[in-house]
Amino acid sequence: MIRSPALTRARMSVVVVALWSLLIAPTINAQLSRPPQYSPQLVSEIKKVQQAAMESDYAYRQLAHLTENIGPRLSGSPQAQTAVEYVAAELRKLGLEVKLEKVMVPHWVRGEETAALTDYPGMAPGTTQKIVLTALGGSVATPAQGLTAEVITVNNFDELQALGRDRVAGKIVLFNAKFDQQLADNGFAGQAYGQAVAYRGGGPSAAARLGAVAALNRSAGGAEYRLPHTGALRYADDAPKIPAAAVAAEDADLIAHLTSEGRVRMRLVLTPQTLADAPSYNVVADLKGSDHPEQIVIVSGHLDSWDLGRGAIDDGAGVAIAMQTAQVLKQLHLRPKRTIRIVAWMNEENGARGGRAYAEDHKADLVNHFAAIESDLGAGHPLGFYAQGKPELLTVLQPLATILQSQGAGVTRMVEETGTDVAPLGEAGVPTFAPIQDARAYFNYHHTAADTLDKVNPKELQENCALVAALAYTLANMPQTLPR
Amino acid sequence: MIRSPALTRARMSVVVVALWSLLIAPTINAQLSRPPQYSPQLVSEIKKVQQAAMESDYAYRQLAHLTENIGPRLSGSPQAQTAVEYVAAELRKLGLEVKLEKVMVPHWVRGEETAALTDYPGMAPGTTQKIVLTALGGSVATPAQGLTAEVITVNNFDELQALGRDRVAGKIVLFNAKFDQQLADNGFAGQAYGQAVAYRGGGPSAAARLGAVAALNRSAGGAEYRLPHTGALRYADDAPKIPAAAVAAEDADLIAHLTSEGRVRMRLVLTPQTLADAPSYNVVADLKGSDHPEQIVIVSGHLDSWDLGRGAIDDGAGVAIAMQTAQVLKQLHLRPKRTIRIVAWMNEENGARGGRAYAEDHKADLVNHFAAIESDLGAGHPLGFYAQGKPELLTVLQPLATILQSQGAGVTRMVEETGTDVAPLGEAGVPTFAPIQDARAYFNYHHTAADTLDKVNPKELQENCALVAALAYTLANMPQTLPR
Repeated sequence: MIRSPALTRARMSVVVVALWSLLIAPTINAQLSRPPQYSPQLVSEIKKVQQAAMESDYAYRQLAHLTENIGPRLSGSPQAQTAVEYVAAELRKLGLEVKLEKVMVPHWVRGEETAALTDYPGMAPGTTQKIVLTALGGSVATPAQGLTAEVITVNNFDELQALGRDRVAGKIVLFNAKFDQQLADNGFAGQAYGQAVAYRGGGPSAAARLGAVAALNRSAGGAEYRLPHTGALRYADDAPKIPAAAVAAEDADLIAHLTSEGRVRMRLVLTPQTLADAPSYNVVADLKGSDHPEQIVIVSGHLDSWDLGRGAIDDGAGVAIAMQTAQVLKQLHLRPKRTIRIVAWMNEENGARGGRAYAEDHKADLVNHFAAIESDLGAGHPLGFYAQGKPELLTVLQPLATILQSQGAGVTRMVEETGTDVAPLGEAGVPTFAPIQDARAYFNYHHTAADTLDKVNPKELQENCALVAALAYTLANMPQTLPR
Repeated sequence: MIRSPALTRARMSVVVVALWSLLIAPTINAQLSRPPQYSPQLVSEIKKVQQAAMESDYAYRQLAHLTENIGPRLSGSPQAQTAVEYVAAELRKLGLEVKLEKVMVPHWVRGEETAALTDYPGMAPGTTQKIVLTALGGSVATPAQGLTAEVITVNNFDELQALGRDRVAGKIVLFNAKFDQQLADNGFAGQAYGQAVAYRGGGPSAAARLGAVAALNRSAGGAEYRLPHTGALRYADDAPKIPAAAVAAEDADLIAHLTSEGRVRMRLVLTPQTLADAPSYNVVADLKGSDHPEQIVIVSGHLDSWDLGRGAIDDGAGVAIAMQTAQVLKQLHLRPKRTIRIVAWMNEENGARGGRAYAEDHKADLVNHFAAIESDLGAGHPLGFYAQGKPELLTVLQPLATILQSQGAGVTRMVEETGTDVAPLGEAGVPTFAPIQDARAYFNYHHTAADTLDKVNPKELQENCALVAALAYTLANMPQTLPR
């Protein structure tokens, strides 16, 4: 999911947002301009859509199949391909016009990943201390037999710079920046993530510039259950590419403790492979509009996932939520006035190629893209929706927010970015939207082996489905145009 | 730690115990007989001991060394031997008379452990679905290349029996009994554990009697972070020994889901080895009594641990708490009237050989064992202490309970067993004791890779040290004898 600091900073406390938006925002909005009135028929239809989604188990069954029958869906993997075919077939079953739009994706394959401390103060003779870690997506490999080097611990980039090349060259550097769980518990989960993830993204090249032979980061996430959190790194052009991995919080603590007492050496084996880019697909499925078929409202999540877990909260849930919108309109025999386009994006996690390819391939037609929704922050209880674009978006959607208030989801808030895959559309002027999910526990599981089906509460998934379906139907049927 | 259902049933809700004991028990006790009065000097010394332990970081430093510098300490491992030598040396440093009492222990060594579903409904061609599991202690191995068989799921022993040999023979059986986290959250953690652990202990032989080729159990513990919980199994004499492992809760869910949809096959590789019994030691360290040196008050925890984590809550904490009692008496220059004997037991986890050997070796002297304390339920806030023996124990210790109330630990309660290692002493008539720890989160980490130093709150460890030191000093100095 989200990786941009701008976005993570924007994802403010759900609690604060809730209070702000419920108590203050409506007043401000009313002063800006007057919300429109929707016709009684449209209001009635939105409520029917909302209610039907709230009662359906379609999304949960789709999510169960994606995660448990198919499994993890890293770009380029057989599971990703099976998932593309599965989602396309399911949407065809609903009667949608489905296309697979080709996109070339990175093809990175995890290998062996083991590490142990081989020398440290007080160690039992003939033993090692196991280190739990996982390679970062895109990491180069160590030699097949591993590398052994001294480990040093720094808490931030400044401490690394202060050590300088003399003390960093030839070493393995651990960036031990702690995930701020209190910040996350207070509702600022995205901000806590943004702080920690800086070292995952930029740490390897920062260490390599000073001659380090490998880089480790304390896992960017909450929950200390010996779980390493993977995620993409970014090699800079001006630095050697060195192997990089995320260690579990407990192992970061261990290394920090032992390096404070004396010399610590580690044997590190990481054997991932970066293969040639592979062909894959965005799944693009249209429920044609009756009055303005050329006008497109995208409803989407991303189909690819990391490989450690089963891609439930990130982001099988988003795909299932989008599919539910189509299912519920078919079930209710409601044909939208504008075209509703369900998109299951490919390669959000390690390249964002799907979103960018779509914006490029449809460049000439983006003027007809009325709006785009992406859900990519799990499936926790939604408090309302984020919007990106002109602030007046919130005014014209105020009647919808009033309807959503019935399910405790009446909050609206402007942000700089709503989702990685729709960001290129947003940059091209298309208004974009996302549910405001309760993400306090999201980063406990995100990018780990524990991102599994059980982490999604079926009732809260239904709430997200209801919100997104109601939002999509409103956007597809509202008489007003959106400011852009 | 604790494995006997009798004990786990006895470890009742800390909340209920607290209310019961605070509001009702004192009244009942008062009716049984009148509590004694301790001399002002004894009361003053108990309070000094309690206070000094509450302010010391000695136990935490010992625990940090045991877990992080030495590491996991499974019986027979080099780390267990290093830990024996380390604890002995530390207690000698304090001036205690230290002996290593030999005990032959099982020597089981974990090997490779991997599993994957190789055939199941809806699978992506050419893929498998990874299953996270860990061998149970004492398990025999699969063939080195693994075994592949159909998996079937049962929720309890009755369902297994109902299937019968025809449908079980040749299969891998998953016992999918869920850990009752709600029961644990309500304070009945031991009871929740007792229910789940029945399948870990007895499942393999029950399945083998019907011809199963391997047995899996859903992990006996809370917290669903893809963490398998190991622990000892018990092979029955009348059944073939088959390989056995605990799967993570998420993987039990997956198997249950897929087996409900169709045929599921698994490839299972477990290569543990059971080597010849190895020599090891109980560490036995005496702080000689001034008036009755022949009378012994044991203060103990167990030094061995499982191999996945680092043995912090189970039971490095118990050993560190016991060591703190000696340290604090030395620091305060308080010589007890009876001998305080610090014991670090070996092999609680997979054989209980240390406790049994001690009782056997000291059989002739057990009449002089005044009391025995063991801490083996983590280091959560202590609410008071358990006692095993005559109910009048609580009466003669009531003045201590009143003192402990100052640290929120004034609860006293009779139980059938206080700790595995002191149970043989209890059976021989020695009164035994244990802290009543808040164990609501204990089984989230117990027997997993996440049993690491950070799971121990330094302040709560100090509270346990204060309680145990005060209890030990009281037992060693009270003018009364204990009923037995």
